[in-house]
Amino acid sequence: MEPSLTAIYCLSFLTAVVAFAFAAYLYLWVKRQKTVNETILNVSTLIKQGANTFMSREYKILALFAAGLAVIIFVLLPSPIWSGGGIGNHLAMAIAYIAGTVLSAVAGKIGVLVATLSNARTAEAAGKGIRPAFLLGFRGGAVMGLLVVGCSLFGVAAVLWIAGDASILLGFSFGASSLALFAKAGGGIFTKTADVSADLTGKVELGIPEDDPRNPAVIADNVGDNVGDVAGMGADLFDSNVAAMASALVIAQSLGGGVNTAMVLVYAILGLLASIIGIATARLGKRGNPTRALNSSTYATTAVFLVLTAAATLLIDGFSWRIWGASATGLFIGVVIGLTTDYFTDDNKPIVRRVAHASGTGPAFTILSGTAYGFISALPAMTGIAASALVAYKLCAPIGDGYAIFGISMAAVGMLSIVGMIISNDAYGPIVDNARGLAEMGGLGEDTIRIADELDSAGNTVKAVTKGFSIGAAGLTVIPLLGAFMSEVNAAITKAGGTELVTGFDLMNPTVFFGILIGAAIPAVFSAMLILGVDKNAQRMVAEIHRQFNTILGLREGTAKPEYDKCIDIATTGALRELLPAGGMVILVTVVVGFVGGPAAIGGFLMGNIVSGLLLSLFMSNAGGLWDNSKKYIEAGSEGDKGSEAHKSAVIGDTVGDPYKDTAGPSINTQITVVSLVASLLAPLFVAFSFFG
Amino acid sequence: MEPSLTAIYCLSFLTAVVAFAFAAYLYLWVKRQKTVNETILNVSTLIKQGANTFMSREYKILALFAAGLAVIIFVLLPSPIWSGGGIGNHLAMAIAYIAGTVLSAVAGKIGVLVATLSNARTAEAAGKGIRPAFLLGFRGGAVMGLLVVGCSLFGVAAVLWIAGDASILLGFSFGASSLALFAKAGGGIFTKTADVSADLTGKVELGIPEDDPRNPAVIADNVGDNVGDVAGMGADLFDSNVAAMASALVIAQSLGGGVNTAMVLVYAILGLLASIIGIATARLGKRGNPTRALNSSTYATTAVFLVLTAAATLLIDGFSWRIWGASATGLFIGVVIGLTTDYFTDDNKPIVRRVAHASGTGPAFTILSGTAYGFISALPAMTGIAASALVAYKLCAPIGDGYAIFGISMAAVGMLSIVGMIISNDAYGPIVDNARGLAEMGGLGEDTIRIADELDSAGNTVKAVTKGFSIGAAGLTVIPLLGAFMSEVNAAITKAGGTELVTGFDLMNPTVFFGILIGAAIPAVFSAMLILGVDKNAQRMVAEIHRQFNTILGLREGTAKPEYDKCIDIATTGALRELLPAGGMVILVTVVVGFVGGPAAIGGFLMGNIVSGLLLSLFMSNAGGLWDNSKKYIEAGSEGDKGSEAHKSAVIGDTVGDPYKDTAGPSINTQITVVSLVASLLAPLFVAFSFFG
Repeated sequence: MEPSLTAIYCLSFLTAVVAFAFAAYLYLWVKRQKTVNETILNVSTLIKQGANTFMSREYKILALFAAGLAVIIFVLLPSPIWSGGGIGNHLAMAIAYIAGTVLSAVAGKIGVLVATLSNARTAEAAGKGIRPAFLLGFRGGAVMGLLVVGCSLFGVAAVLWIAGDASILLGFSFGASSLALFAKAGGGIFTKTADVSADLTGKVELGIPEDDPRNPAVIADNVGDNVGDVAGMGADLFDSNVAAMASALVIAQSLGGGVNTAMVLVYAILGLLASIIGIATARLGKRGNPTRALNSSTYATTAVFLVLTAAATLLIDGFSWRIWGASATGLFIGVVIGLTTDYFTDDNKPIVRRVAHASGTGPAFTILSGTAYGFISALPAMTGIAASALVAYKLCAPIGDGYAIFGISMAAVGMLSIVGMIISNDAYGPIVDNARGLAEMGGLGEDTIRIADELDSAGNTVKAVTKGFSIGAAGLTVIPLLGAFMSEVNAAITKAGGTELVTGFDLMNPTVFFGILIGAAIPAVFSAMLILGVDKNAQRMVAEIHRQFNTILGLREGTAKPEYDKCIDIATTGALRELLPAGGMVILVTVVVGFVGGPAAIGGFLMGNIVSGLLLSLFMSNAGGLWDNSKKYIEAGSEGDKGSEAHKSAVIGDTVGDPYKDTAGPSINTQITVVSLVASLLAPLFVAFSFFG
Repeated sequence: MEPSLTAIYCLSFLTAVVAFAFAAYLYLWVKRQKTVNETILNVSTLIKQGANTFMSREYKILALFAAGLAVIIFVLLPSPIWSGGGIGNHLAMAIAYIAGTVLSAVAGKIGVLVATLSNARTAEAAGKGIRPAFLLGFRGGAVMGLLVVGCSLFGVAAVLWIAGDASILLGFSFGASSLALFAKAGGGIFTKTADVSADLTGKVELGIPEDDPRNPAVIADNVGDNVGDVAGMGADLFDSNVAAMASALVIAQSLGGGVNTAMVLVYAILGLLASIIGIATARLGKRGNPTRALNSSTYATTAVFLVLTAAATLLIDGFSWRIWGASATGLFIGVVIGLTTDYFTDDNKPIVRRVAHASGTGPAFTILSGTAYGFISALPAMTGIAASALVAYKLCAPIGDGYAIFGISMAAVGMLSIVGMIISNDAYGPIVDNARGLAEMGGLGEDTIRIADELDSAGNTVKAVTKGFSIGAAGLTVIPLLGAFMSEVNAAITKAGGTELVTGFDLMNPTVFFGILIGAAIPAVFSAMLILGVDKNAQRMVAEIHRQFNTILGLREGTAKPEYDKCIDIATTGALRELLPAGGMVILVTVVVGFVGGPAAIGGFLMGNIVSGLLLSLFMSNAGGLWDNSKKYIEAGSEGDKGSEAHKSAVIGDTVGDPYKDTAGPSINTQITVVSLVASLLAPLFVAFSFFG
């Protein structure tokens, strides 16, 4: 049967509502679990308040930024307002943009709310055993996963249904990107400022344990886990997911819509259903290994998705096996990237152990070997992305003109189909990390802390897998994205009465080459600015911690309380202050390149940006994870245990890796979307004027 | 007047001979200076012998490799031998290839010979004052500079004259590349193995000074300076210079030869003349600052070159100001890249001081801030390369069809025109570095060591400038190189009876994208393998040093002599053993990509490779220089001087930076040439068969 689009819209809303309902159920389930420990409750409240403080300040600045951008979008998109045409599309674009920011913000806000509820309950549950604690941590995280995917499906379907024009989705996608920039890069600076400062002063200078309540930065550190990993990663994947769907839907529309549009939405619906099933069935086995539990839910979700989409292809007339193959290829490569990441960052595998062993020779060897393996780890992922784009293209090219690119965009949709499950796993990480801290602060005893540690270590591993998915999807969307940019440019050329349309971006054109080179440098500079931002901000916080230890009597002895809020305040203000120049630099360079070299330079710029962005983000995420787990591996009793030379070196490696893996590496994705946003917004201006273009 | 090509060939040979004669004069001048100190003479002989050992072993392996490759070249180039055509061109190609390796090897061999003569003499001259010592170090280095440029001009002119076909230059250029791979990457592993091991055991474990004769690795360390920096950098710049001239001459031929061919050779002749003048007039002023002396000779050479080429343009009918402008742009950007590098790595500038200051907070901050500034330092250089390619292209496009690309290749020729001066400055570095060591070992006293230190520090700074030139030129040759690859491919297509010629490499073609992504990962993996190679090899050498200290009685007290040759042997064997897998990986991946995706994938592969290669080599070279000089800055009395926490951190930074800046970073250039070599060699096979192509 040929699917009815209206039915599919309704089905999209229905599935989103099911996801929301399931999220609400899990939320209430988490809330019903009891907390009795007074200290834990107090600390958990402090964490919640801290997270709220950061998020409201962030959202306030973001609201200003978004309001300004909404006006610019209103004026410039879908084409400059002075070039004529109705005002309706302009309004739709601006509203879609605002909807994108609002939905992402709401999902993030609720996700953090649940995460900060779950942490204390998970800590106490760990007192009863690993299985209930696992379930609490996982279900708390799953609320975020369900909300993000529910919101994206709901939003995309609603915008498309109301506007009746897929290009309006561009606005919605931009909204998601703006929020991701603040949430991911800002949250990343916040979390690492607090983490690095807490470690430096606590563990290194004073020799007190991690999460010791005497450390003034300890609450900020726990807040950071929530705002950086829960809200930040959620916003990032919301953004990737919306971008992948939007670009597939735009291409589907250019292919005549109908069954193509239906296919994109059906795949998204089935992905969400598969995630719901995966989440509902996730349990820790009797001889529970939490990493295995998380991974097997992921594989289960993958299998369910493949079966459901195969069934849909069989049922629905016109659905093509080629498209199914492209989407399966994307999902398969996502899993492969995850496994590679796991190979490079899991402490049961040789690489982590080699770096731990090299640490015995001194910190320089920790850094050198970690850097080297981080570089090497980029190859399989980049090859996988490259190969899946090629396979999807070749698979779908025979369907007809334009289907080859549609195939690539469906590979991206496929890779992100199980994102609900992925986010659930990812948000589980900070919840159990927090729980570990709360168990320590609440004095729940060694056994409970050990269980919390075990849950935490699994969180680190699956986090690496998540990053693989978000980076991989960014790589796959580049060709559809260049295609979208090219249509923008050609529309502008046609409007201006030109006839020489752009048909591609030739590597041998020096204007394209100009763009590529500069584009490739930008992720490096952006990462550098974020790293320096963390560095500067951590110095401020370290000074504040020193001040507190010097002026608050009894703090060292534990008889007086530190001023936690001062540290939270420094992290908050600093994160936003350091983020803006980095974001501004990216926007400025894009504008300059566009006005110097015109659309051809921007085409090259986007490609250079994504290629070096992929390389650097894979390198930094994996090297960071590798160092973190090498340290943990030594702390678990290898290479001389805590206090050995190897451990000291590993701690240095971990500190270097912190901003790599949690600030710079994962923010590159959002940097890439900012570039494409600015490029698309200003395409008509670049066409109208450029120095060398 | 229209220039006669024969006259210009003669002029090329004459200029080369003048350069050789001047080199011989300088060699004899250096040799005439007396050495009296027994210890210094002995040690210097050990260094010379060690360098000879390494170079003969290296040349032996290289000879096998080159012989094999010569056969492959004979069979496959200019087109597969089975496709018909005379055997003459095949023979010419193979002979040109062998000539390229031989000339480069001879220049390297003599350069190292003079450098190892000059080091002892410079050390003793430092006893008489900084001015004579400077002159000795500089003139010793200048022999290498003159030889390299003389050989490249002589070789290129001879091949072109004899063969009468510029495409045979490809063979000569391949010869230069093969040697550069061994000399630069192999020498780089050698030098850093020795340096890192000597530092770790000597300075860190035993607390004995750098260059203490009790350290078994000390001679290997000094040998490394010569084989890595003198021979390696010389071979690298020989390769870049030949590649730039060859690609310009191939394009000139495609534009009808005549005045275009003449122009390339005249620019090269005038560049060599300008370098001779610059070298002859280099002196240290009364209130001598050696860095300033080296830099002002470079600027003088630049000015002389610009004036001479302007005069030639005026005199010779048909020479175009547009071409002059393109070449001047290239040279200008080379100087700008040098200045940028200087800004990021000079300890009189803020960046080095900031990193030194951050080191006070711990080694993690040394690494993080150095990494961040290293990333940032890539932006101006990449922008400069991009801008000069664009400007040269736009300047020369109006001359006629095909001149735009010729303009870019002339920008590369312009950038490398003063390479004789550049190499002289660069080879000065290891000579004075050795001299410093010899002054220490010969017990020449604090004053002499201080002078040697001052000379050494200038060497570090100008080294950074050299790297800017060689990296910049690699960036500028990419478009001509892609053009050359495309002609190869089209020739093969035509031969095979095909009609669909390749006209460019479109970014939106997933096959090109496939190549770009994988190409971009290769420099990272190659660097990683070299870094791990240094790491492994250093562990072997550290074990050997420990063995010597444990088993040789009286070594610690200085009454017994260490077995220096054992360390040299480890460095030699290890360097060649670690180099081969890295080189093999690059070749293998290129072949696989070619057979999977065909010529389109290889086009993308070359671009991705160069873009990420530029980024990583700029990052690693500059971060390494930055860390080295931060350490030196602290040792000169800042941030708590030697023994402070900041110093300890800075030493760790320096150790990380060593393989970055002297092994991996500068070897990426040669990796890029290996890729293009393999791509061109196998182009006909990729055209004939590829899975997805």
